Amino acid sequence: MKSLAELFEHTLQDVYFAENAITKALPKVAKAAKSPELKKAAELHLSETKEQIKKLDQVFKSMGKKPAGMKCDAIEGLIKEADGLMSEAEGIALDAGLLAACQAVEHYEIARYGSLREWAKGLGHEEAHTLLSEILDQEKATNNKLTNLAVTSINKASPVKKAA
Amino acid sequence: MKSLAELFEHTLQDVYFAENAITKALPKVAKAAKSPELKKAAELHLSETKEQIKKLDQVFKSMGKKPAGMKCDAIEGLIKEADGLMSEAEGIALDAGLLAACQAVEHYEIARYGSLREWAKGLGHEEAHTLLSEILDQEKATNNKLTNLAVTSINKASPVKKAA
Repeated sequence: MKSLAELFEHTLQDVYFAENAITKALPKVAKAAKSPELKKAAELHLSETKEQIKKLDQVFKSMGKKPAGMKCDAIEGLIKEADGLMSEAEGIALDAGLLAACQAVEHYEIARYGSLREWAKGLGHEEAHTLLSEILDQEKATNNKLTNLAVTSINKASPVKKAA
Repeated sequence: MKSLAELFEHTLQDVYFAENAITKALPKVAKAAKSPELKKAAELHLSETKEQIKKLDQVFKSMGKKPAGMKCDAIEGLIKEADGLMSEAEGIALDAGLLAACQAVEHYEIARYGSLREWAKGLGHEEAHTLLSEILDQEKATNNKLTNLAVTSINKASPVKKAA
């Protein structure tokens, strides 16, 4: 792998694998979560992820390539961490931990799409640049929603009494 | 693991492991990178990471706990991805890929410290909250520097001719 074009295609295959892995992980998160808000957030993000995969299909197509995934160690590690939580945690620790695990996955995607869309721009792939920017914006919005949800739930669960 | 306090300690051990793993990975990045700016960024972040580990020691101490790391699958996956790049890529693909891998690690840390500092606040650990917020701000600043470096290098390497 020598050129930016080769790196771009390689990383696109990496996120394609990651998004597909996420569609398998999110139903487990929705099932394990105790809070209805977290369940709903996981279900909503599952449908967004499926739309994002369709956009990635378009990105591949716009470059005259067939959509393909390539094993991505990072997402496997992130999902393994969430799986560990689901088997080890319960109650408040389970919900707060799952929320944090979802945010770690979102941040991974934000990093990857941030790089990919800059590379698309540099390579002159305008359609790919637009599609990847749309996905990036959606991931950022999802992460913001999860942050708000996390702050609200911690405030509810906090043992610290608020001063009047 | 049932309480927010247990989750907090568990995740603190997870980032402690991660930061220590990063101190071992960064010298390899600095050595492999071709661009002097990326080499310099990796070396600078190595010294920052060492300072962050000292701050984490203080966080543990402020809670009356001994600093300890716990195997973190996510950081291992992220580092494995960077190792893969160093063995498979060269030229522009190597530098751009390494920069992107460093940003993925930064984003992982941003996600983790974001959760940790909110939990510290909820648990009433004021000193821990302050220290974790300081580390979070530094990680965000590092990520911004890497973004600027990435955009500058892509512009230099881009095969797309700029309109006059």
